[in-house]
Amino acid sequence: MKVGERHFRSIWHDEKDPAVVWIIDQRRLPFAFEVISLKSVKDVCEAISGMAVRGAPLIGVTAAWGIYFSLLEHHNSDDIVASVTADGVMLKGTRPTAVNLSWAVDLMVGKVKSDPSVDKIRSAAIMLCNEEVARCRRTGEHGLHLIEKISQEKQGDTVNILTHCNAGWLACVDYGTALAPVYLAHDKGIKVHVWVDETRPRNQGSRLTAWELGNHGVPYTLVTDNAGGLLMQRGMVNIVIVGCDRATLNGDVANKIGTYLKALAAFDNNIPVYSALPVSSFDLSLNHFDDIPVEERDSSEVKYIEGMGKDGLTEVLICPEESKVINHGFDITPARLLTGLITDRGVCRADKESIIKILL
Amino acid sequence: MKVGERHFRSIWHDEKDPAVVWIIDQRRLPFAFEVISLKSVKDVCEAISGMAVRGAPLIGVTAAWGIYFSLLEHHNSDDIVASVTADGVMLKGTRPTAVNLSWAVDLMVGKVKSDPSVDKIRSAAIMLCNEEVARCRRTGEHGLHLIEKISQEKQGDTVNILTHCNAGWLACVDYGTALAPVYLAHDKGIKVHVWVDETRPRNQGSRLTAWELGNHGVPYTLVTDNAGGLLMQRGMVNIVIVGCDRATLNGDVANKIGTYLKALAAFDNNIPVYSALPVSSFDLSLNHFDDIPVEERDSSEVKYIEGMGKDGLTEVLICPEESKVINHGFDITPARLLTGLITDRGVCRADKESIIKILL
Repeated sequence: MKVGERHFRSIWHDEKDPAVVWIIDQRRLPFAFEVISLKSVKDVCEAISGMAVRGAPLIGVTAAWGIYFSLLEHHNSDDIVASVTADGVMLKGTRPTAVNLSWAVDLMVGKVKSDPSVDKIRSAAIMLCNEEVARCRRTGEHGLHLIEKISQEKQGDTVNILTHCNAGWLACVDYGTALAPVYLAHDKGIKVHVWVDETRPRNQGSRLTAWELGNHGVPYTLVTDNAGGLLMQRGMVNIVIVGCDRATLNGDVANKIGTYLKALAAFDNNIPVYSALPVSSFDLSLNHFDDIPVEERDSSEVKYIEGMGKDGLTEVLICPEESKVINHGFDITPARLLTGLITDRGVCRADKESIIKILL
Repeated sequence: MKVGERHFRSIWHDEKDPAVVWIIDQRRLPFAFEVISLKSVKDVCEAISGMAVRGAPLIGVTAAWGIYFSLLEHHNSDDIVASVTADGVMLKGTRPTAVNLSWAVDLMVGKVKSDPSVDKIRSAAIMLCNEEVARCRRTGEHGLHLIEKISQEKQGDTVNILTHCNAGWLACVDYGTALAPVYLAHDKGIKVHVWVDETRPRNQGSRLTAWELGNHGVPYTLVTDNAGGLLMQRGMVNIVIVGCDRATLNGDVANKIGTYLKALAAFDNNIPVYSALPVSSFDLSLNHFDDIPVEERDSSEVKYIEGMGKDGLTEVLICPEESKVINHGFDITPARLLTGLITDRGVCRADKESIIKILL
């Protein structure tokens, strides 16, 4: 989507120099817009583990480029496959919980095994990027109808969408998942406005979602995570669209912590609430949401908040230093609270029958 | 309650010097424990408007001492009542929305009118303080039974209480409202543990509630405002107790923004949820929660977070500087979600009949 007047993706290959891939340094957003060049497996590993790139789809695509660089580095070696496989293991270790990461690495290593041609592997990485964009665009097109319908019901008046965390183009390659329908609606001239949850503890909402919406020209208002309930009580929200980390076949959705609270409020106020996801996010091994493991993250994310101070990016302590903290990464929104799911294959109800129909 | 080994109130008169009242500078908590002496109406006005003291009950009591200082300053003047009344108007202007503030000022000015004796007005201010403490203690005793019952059901295992914002002794004079039952339970040897919501945007949970519980020796764990839903889904919360800014006769409760979301989650998981309040918080002029006005506060509270940096207390920006923000002070928890109300006159159901019975 746009940054200023120019169109950007969150990762792109250099058209002139086949040894270079570019990313946006997301650690500096929204305070500075800086691009970084990746030129080696090491660069890719550092970009992922250091969180210059984040968001499961983007991590996967970045890792795919890592395998390309690995091949560049080893294509004259005695055992290309062994070297690239070893780099793949290293890449997978950069963020152990991201499923897309393993998937993309395995896919690319497989391609190297069958044909270790540098040109072909570069094309494969480009194709993976483009497929990711196409998938998000399809998700956006399916979700667009929901926004269009509300816009018609409101006779063209602004559609107010509440979102949580960042499921936008920065997390993917372009468009995003939850935000894809919003961008398509905005680009089509439908009046939209987004309520952006700040999304403690890492503030992906206030830092990334606010930044990407603002740069594309989509009107938004930042609110604390506590505010959504009141906005819904007052009729200031028409639809809630969130992302998804993992979903069960029953339609239960694990997403950034706090999503469940917003779904409860939406349900309580008869406001439609959707989770947007590629069908690859359905985990067929899970039958019940209690089976979804919930990552526990470092307590420092809660105790310290990063922001722009007088002398640059810095952290401040917001509690007694000795405070005990628990920091879960996500919560689970049971299917019964969801109006439906927006996928790259269409919109469906959040129940087994409808999901299986979409998957088949 | 205790700070280290010593018992403190949030405001106390100097036993030796009748011209001095002491407060804790709550702006510095939890990073520094500093007490400030108040010696004039001006000191009191600055303490309230500068938020060295906060919390409706404490603001009221502090303002009462303001009227005492006014009398000290004017007791030799030609028209004592006119001077004290004028100072009362000034005191009321320090935080225009706090109901307790007007109430305490009017009460004390009335006492000055009927007998402008310095000793008597000092005694009246001391009595107001003590009554506030007694009211909180009674609230605590009524709520204690609820915690005791859960403790028995759990055969003495830890009772996990979730609270939002700060409705503890720092907001009152001692004990608090929502936290009063917790302190009494802890002091009685009942095993309790508190989940402390950080309470964005002003972080009264992470800064004040965490500090006061920790200093009294009550075990607590700090969590983001987003986390409560997951904790409840996982059975890690036994009871939710929050404070109250204002309540309708129907039992609808206005409290710090985010309370409604926690009540929804508690209701969804069959966890009892109570609001603790003095009966003076019932606003008889309101019939429906839509009638409760909701304060809109400055956007800078959301855009900037204050915390302890390398060089002391400082603010950091957490979003694009140009972000539009909306910052409501509280939301409304409808009576249907509440298990009951804990008041200084007993525990009751959150419905008109039960509330009227308590009030009569």
